[in-house]
Amino acid sequence: MPRPATPALTVDAVITDPRRGLVLIRRRNPPFAGRWALPGGFVDVREACEDACCREVREETGLEVAICGLLGVWSRADRDPRGHTVSAVYLCRVVGGTVASGDDAAEAAWFADLGGVSLAFDHAEILASAGFLPGGQAPSGSRP
Amino acid sequence: MPRPATPALTVDAVITDPRRGLVLIRRRNPPFAGRWALPGGFVDVREACEDACCREVREETGLEVAICGLLGVWSRADRDPRGHTVSAVYLCRVVGGTVASGDDAAEAAWFADLGGVSLAFDHAEILASAGFLPGGQAPSGSRP
Repeated sequence: MPRPATPALTVDAVITDPRRGLVLIRRRNPPFAGRWALPGGFVDVREACEDACCREVREETGLEVAICGLLGVWSRADRDPRGHTVSAVYLCRVVGGTVASGDDAAEAAWFADLGGVSLAFDHAEILASAGFLPGGQAPSGSRP
Repeated sequence: MPRPATPALTVDAVITDPRRGLVLIRRRNPPFAGRWALPGGFVDVREACEDACCREVREETGLEVAICGLLGVWSRADRDPRGHTVSAVYLCRVVGGTVASGDDAAEAAWFADLGGVSLAFDHAEILASAGFLPGGQAPSGSRP
C-alpha cells in the first residue's frame, strides 16, 4: 500500500546560554534570504530528529550542541512559502565549538537582545512561546 | 530549489481518562495487523498536526478529543517497517462521543490495565515514557 504524501519535516534549534543569549543565523538562500532565523533545516530520511538538529546546528553555526528538550512542533500550513513544512523545535545548550557561519548561513551570531531583529518564518512566534520574546502563544495556532 | 525528501509524518494520540484508562485501537491493516496501538495516522499536507490528531482519533475511535499537550516526537529510523516515519504524539482528553471503531481500526476500546497487551510499533516505549507502562525512556533513543 503506498504511503500518503505528508508535510516536509524540519528541525530548528533554540540555543541559549545565560551569559551570551541566543544564537541566530542570517539566511543565505530564499525564502527570507538575508533575514535572521533559528538554525535548522530538513530532516534526512533515516535520521532521528535530534541528530538532524545537532547536524544542522553544526553545519550552520560551527557549534556542537546537546538537546535539552523538545520545545514544540510548529505545523501551520502557511508557515513556509515553499510548501507545508512541519518543524520540531529543540532547546539546546552548547557543548563545544565557537560560532562560525557555514552552509546555508551567511552569518551566525549570539544575540543578547532580540529587540528590532526581524525573524524569518514563524520564528518570532516560536521564540515568544518560549518566553524569549513578548506575546507567546501555543504552537500551531489550531489548538482548541 | 527542490525540497529534499524527508521522513513521513504521523500523529498518535494518548487519550486518557481517570476513570476509564486509555484508548487503544486494534489495527485492521499491516504492519502489525491485529495488534493494539495508539490511535493515529499520517498527517495530510496543509493540515496542522493537532488537527490531524483529532481527525484520526475521530475516524478510528468515534471520539472527539481536545489536545492537552505534546508528549514528544518519536523519530528512530526503524520504528515503522514501511519506511522512516516520525510521529508527534499528543496527550488528549475526550470532549465528546463514545468509543466505536472505524476506518483503519478493527476495534477500539478503553484499557484500564495494559498488562499483557502487545503493542504495535514503538507504542509501548511511548506509553512508558509517559509513565503508563514501566521502563520509560526519552523519545528517539538518540538523545545525548
